[in-house]
Amino acid sequence: MNKFLEQALLFDFYGELLTDHQKEIYEQFALEDLSLSEIAEMKGISRQGVHDLVKRCQKTLEGYEMKLHLVEKFLSVKEKVSKIDDTLAEWECEKNDPEEMVKRIRKIADAIIEEL
Amino acid sequence: MNKFLEQALLFDFYGELLTDHQKEIYEQFALEDLSLSEIAEMKGISRQGVHDLVKRCQKTLEGYEMKLHLVEKFLSVKEKVSKIDDTLAEWECEKNDPEEMVKRIRKIADAIIEEL
Repeated sequence: MNKFLEQALLFDFYGELLTDHQKEIYEQFALEDLSLSEIAEMKGISRQGVHDLVKRCQKTLEGYEMKLHLVEKFLSVKEKVSKIDDTLAEWECEKNDPEEMVKRIRKIADAIIEEL
Repeated sequence: MNKFLEQALLFDFYGELLTDHQKEIYEQFALEDLSLSEIAEMKGISRQGVHDLVKRCQKTLEGYEMKLHLVEKFLSVKEKVSKIDDTLAEWECEKNDPEEMVKRIRKIADAIIEEL
C-alpha cells in the first residue's frame, strides 16, 4: 500500500486517539497534503516542531495498528466484499449456473464472518 | 446486547491497549467469568483491588469504543454479511429469479463497502 493511503487509513481508524492539537496538525499533513512549512506558518510554530509532531503522531498511530490490527482486518474484509461484487458482476455477464455463483458467494461470506 | 457479550467484544477489540497486568485480570473476570473473590485469591490481592481494576478496565475499553466506534462498525458489517447469507439461503429454497437475488446482494455488499 502506498504511504499516503496508509497514513490516511491509520488516521481514519485511530485519529480520535490523538490530542486535538495533534489531530489538527496531522490531518493537514496527511490528509490535506500541506507541507511542513505551510503548516508551520499557519500555526505559528517552527517547521521542526511540525516535523516532530507529525513523526510522533505516525509512531503513535502505527503503534495502535501494531497492537490492534484493525486496519489490516478491515482491508481484508473490504477485499472479500469486493470479491462478492466481482462474482455477481461475472454472473450477470455470463448468466451461467446460479447455483455455482451462490456457492462461491456463500464461501466468501462465511470467510468474512470468520474473520470478524 | 447483553453485558457479557459487550465486555467480551470490547476486550477482543481493544484489550491489547491494556497493560499486561490489567489484561490478565480483566480477561479472567470478563471472559473466563471468575468471581472477584476467586481472582483476588489467585492473584494475592484484595477483592476491592480486583474490583477497582476491573471497573477501571471497563471504563478504559468503553472510552476507546466511544472514540473509535469499531465494535459498533464491526457488528453492523457482521449483520449485513449475515443478510447476504440469508438472501442466498432464501434463494436456494425458492429458486426464483436469480436476477432479483443478485440485485439484493449487490445492494448489501455496496452498503458494507460504504461503511468500511
